[in-house]
Amino acid sequence: MGAVDSVKNLRQTVADLHRELTRYGLVIWTAGNVSARVPGEDLMVIKPSGVSYDDLSPDTMVVTDLHGNLVEGDLAPSSDTAAHAYVYRHMPEVGGVVHTHSPYATAWAARGEPIPCVLTMIADEFGGEIPVGPFALIGDDSIGRGIVETLRDSRSPAVLMRSHGPFTVGRDARSAVKAAVMVEDVARTVHFAHQLGTPAAIDAAAVDRLYERYQNVYGQ
Amino acid sequence: MGAVDSVKNLRQTVADLHRELTRYGLVIWTAGNVSARVPGEDLMVIKPSGVSYDDLSPDTMVVTDLHGNLVEGDLAPSSDTAAHAYVYRHMPEVGGVVHTHSPYATAWAARGEPIPCVLTMIADEFGGEIPVGPFALIGDDSIGRGIVETLRDSRSPAVLMRSHGPFTVGRDARSAVKAAVMVEDVARTVHFAHQLGTPAAIDAAAVDRLYERYQNVYGQ
Amino acid sequence: MGAVDSVKNLRQTVADLHRELTRYGLVIWTAGNVSARVPGEDLMVIKPSGVSYDDLSPDTMVVTDLHGNLVEGDLAPSSDTAAHAYVYRHMPEVGGVVHTHSPYATAWAARGEPIPCVLTMIADEFGGEIPVGPFALIGDDSIGRGIVETLRDSRSPAVLMRSHGPFTVGRDARSAVKAAVMVEDVARTVHFAHQLGTPAAIDAAAVDRLYERYQNVYGQ
Amino acid sequence: MGAVDSVKNLRQTVADLHRELTRYGLVIWTAGNVSARVPGEDLMVIKPSGVSYDDLSPDTMVVTDLHGNLVEGDLAPSSDTAAHAYVYRHMPEVGGVVHTHSPYATAWAARGEPIPCVLTMIADEFGGEIPVGPFALIGDDSIGRGIVETLRDSRSPAVLMRSHGPFTVGRDARSAVKAAVMVEDVARTVHFAHQLGTPAAIDAAAVDRLYERYQNVYGQ
Repeated sequence: MGAVDSVKNLRQTVADLHRELTRYGLVIWTAGNVSARVPGEDLMVIKPSGVSYDDLSPDTMVVTDLHGNLVEGDLAPSSDTAAHAYVYRHMPEVGGVVHTHSPYATAWAARGEPIPCVLTMIADEFGGEIPVGPFALIGDDSIGRGIVETLRDSRSPAVLMRSHGPFTVGRDARSAVKAAVMVEDVARTVHFAHQLGTPAAIDAAAVDRLYERYQNVYGQ
Repeated sequence: MGAVDSVKNLRQTVADLHRELTRYGLVIWTAGNVSARVPGEDLMVIKPSGVSYDDLSPDTMVVTDLHGNLVEGDLAPSSDTAAHAYVYRHMPEVGGVVHTHSPYATAWAARGEPIPCVLTMIADEFGGEIPVGPFALIGDDSIGRGIVETLRDSRSPAVLMRSHGPFTVGRDARSAVKAAVMVEDVARTVHFAHQLGTPAAIDAAAVDRLYERYQNVYGQ
Repeated sequence: MGAVDSVKNLRQTVADLHRELTRYGLVIWTAGNVSARVPGEDLMVIKPSGVSYDDLSPDTMVVTDLHGNLVEGDLAPSSDTAAHAYVYRHMPEVGGVVHTHSPYATAWAARGEPIPCVLTMIADEFGGEIPVGPFALIGDDSIGRGIVETLRDSRSPAVLMRSHGPFTVGRDARSAVKAAVMVEDVARTVHFAHQLGTPAAIDAAAVDRLYERYQNVYGQ
Repeated sequence: MGAVDSVKNLRQTVADLHRELTRYGLVIWTAGNVSARVPGEDLMVIKPSGVSYDDLSPDTMVVTDLHGNLVEGDLAPSSDTAAHAYVYRHMPEVGGVVHTHSPYATAWAARGEPIPCVLTMIADEFGGEIPVGPFALIGDDSIGRGIVETLRDSRSPAVLMRSHGPFTVGRDARSAVKAAVMVEDVARTVHFAHQLGTPAAIDAAAVDRLYERYQNVYGQ
């Protein structure tokens, strides 16, 4: 498939995947975004800045290079483009990035507290606790660097950026969206569990067995 | 009705019932499943593994024997098939099984804490507190055995599997789904009640009267 | 309007109003019901027992006398019919009754704790704190008597029946549904307020002014 | 565009914007309202009192002068009209006002506690903590005066009126609705964060940088 076809398909995919963010209540108004790397190109497809989820379509998606410079599209790219671009430059295995301010995950991020691995679902998808990244201001590479440095030390596809919210990655955009949905779900359940007690952590050997199985056996 | 007709109808029923899981927010992405025993046969109909709820249809459902071996269908069965199958082998009165990670019920499961019988709705449907089952790893009969051993000592159609989530059973798949909806509802209400105090348990004689009436008089 | 027309219209109204219970998340499965008094007759229109909200229509509604005896309809009336009937017999000003197990209101009911009047919205609609009624078993007049005795001492159209859930009344079924929606809303907000502190009660003179204005000036 | 056209367009805009209040769960029944100033005129367009959100249309919107007197429309204006009008009279830069009783924001209002600036999203939109306004009774200028006096000392477009709920303002009605959506979102996330600890405030210099960037660079 040529780069032109690939960009065309990814515009559709990325536009559609934003509907999962609204479906699961991960975003309000315009505050969250999905991007996808264009395979084999130094390009990414990303949401335009400040555009309502109701108005997203393949045509409104924006194509930038991996430094966030506009390549194709009529609209300015997401204000989080620099962070997405940094991740693609430094994590070649990543094909999709998602950022939300989903409420429970962001509450853990506000406290700077990792989500402990107390559920089989966390072991399955995240392979251990979900880590916290540094506080970083928007406007340069600080956020991207914080994401990459935190994820490098973890099996987790999600990082809770301090006082800000979750970023997730995946081999493609759909996987990154799945991780965004799951990080909010487990952030919520573990929040509930902690409100009335202290759930026990799953022991490390069981976490490893669950993670291996889910990553290799689950699905079609 | 012959086995072929029965399987055809159950494919429709089981596919449709998954919509109740999404309607009530009991599942995200692909993380929950419904099955039904084929009456008079050593067969069950169950969700395929890792398939989105949007894409479920009678045709995508899978038929397995009661050891989880694929009998009919193009897709791999749910990764929880072994647990469902174990329940059908050991609880002949059960015609339907449901598994979710619904957030409030899973929070009680994470703490390993049974849901106390402090609401008339709990007495009605569950006949007492909702019990906790053991921590068990996926991959063999451990989860199924934990479910069966816990439910044998209880009138409850729901068990909270530790660090994992609820499993529910019923005389048919619809009843098991109803129990899955109700266990999350009461898990949530009792969570709220406990956040600001300690609700009183309903005394055992009243629980018995409520349970008897609801099981025998309620409905059409 | 004759009694026949009136019953026909009320079947439609009562069937439709159940949609407000599902819209606002006040009920799950079949666990909540609306009724309306037939003006000028010793009759009421009520939901049938154990029927899904998706399947409610004017035709499936049931007509009973004010002792709960079936007068018209193919289905058994709601298992809460005796409580509704008792209210209509003893509170002639009441034209509609609603019962739900909405989660926040039921959490207050589980603790047996009235909802304090800490919001202008509570003063507006309920005229003071929302009271708790006694624990009462289904099957005779106990629940109805508990509702009536509690509401007699209050301006509130809602009572939190202990370990059970809210009942609300109104001059017609729509008003009773509105009170059911509002009792859950304020139960939730006051729950949140109490989780992180103790909100101040509104003083009695201000409560009176708010209640008078809302009851007499608000709306069209 | 003449005043007649402008009013016609604003009737549509204001009617439509109420759908954002229901979409994000900020209102129940009829308890919340949006208004817009008619540019260049001493007029505003506002929701009618006590009318269901399902029944709102351009035709049912009401036009009043900036003292709340009815100028155009068949229905009585919102019972909060005096507060909206006071804001328009005293804050010439404001083109839209929204009032809700959204649950988390109202819980902070019930405690009289400002929402601390512990999230980048709060710095972006509100430029610091979200302030609390005085307790004020409906019926005269007290609520409007409380809103104006509180917002004058703040960069925040939202004020939490004590024991009542949030009011938000914007350069137009859409901006005020956005602030209403965002104040509930951050009220909720910070509520969650505080339930399990104490999130750190963002330092003042970082708040300033975030606020400047979001107000001037974000969007199209």
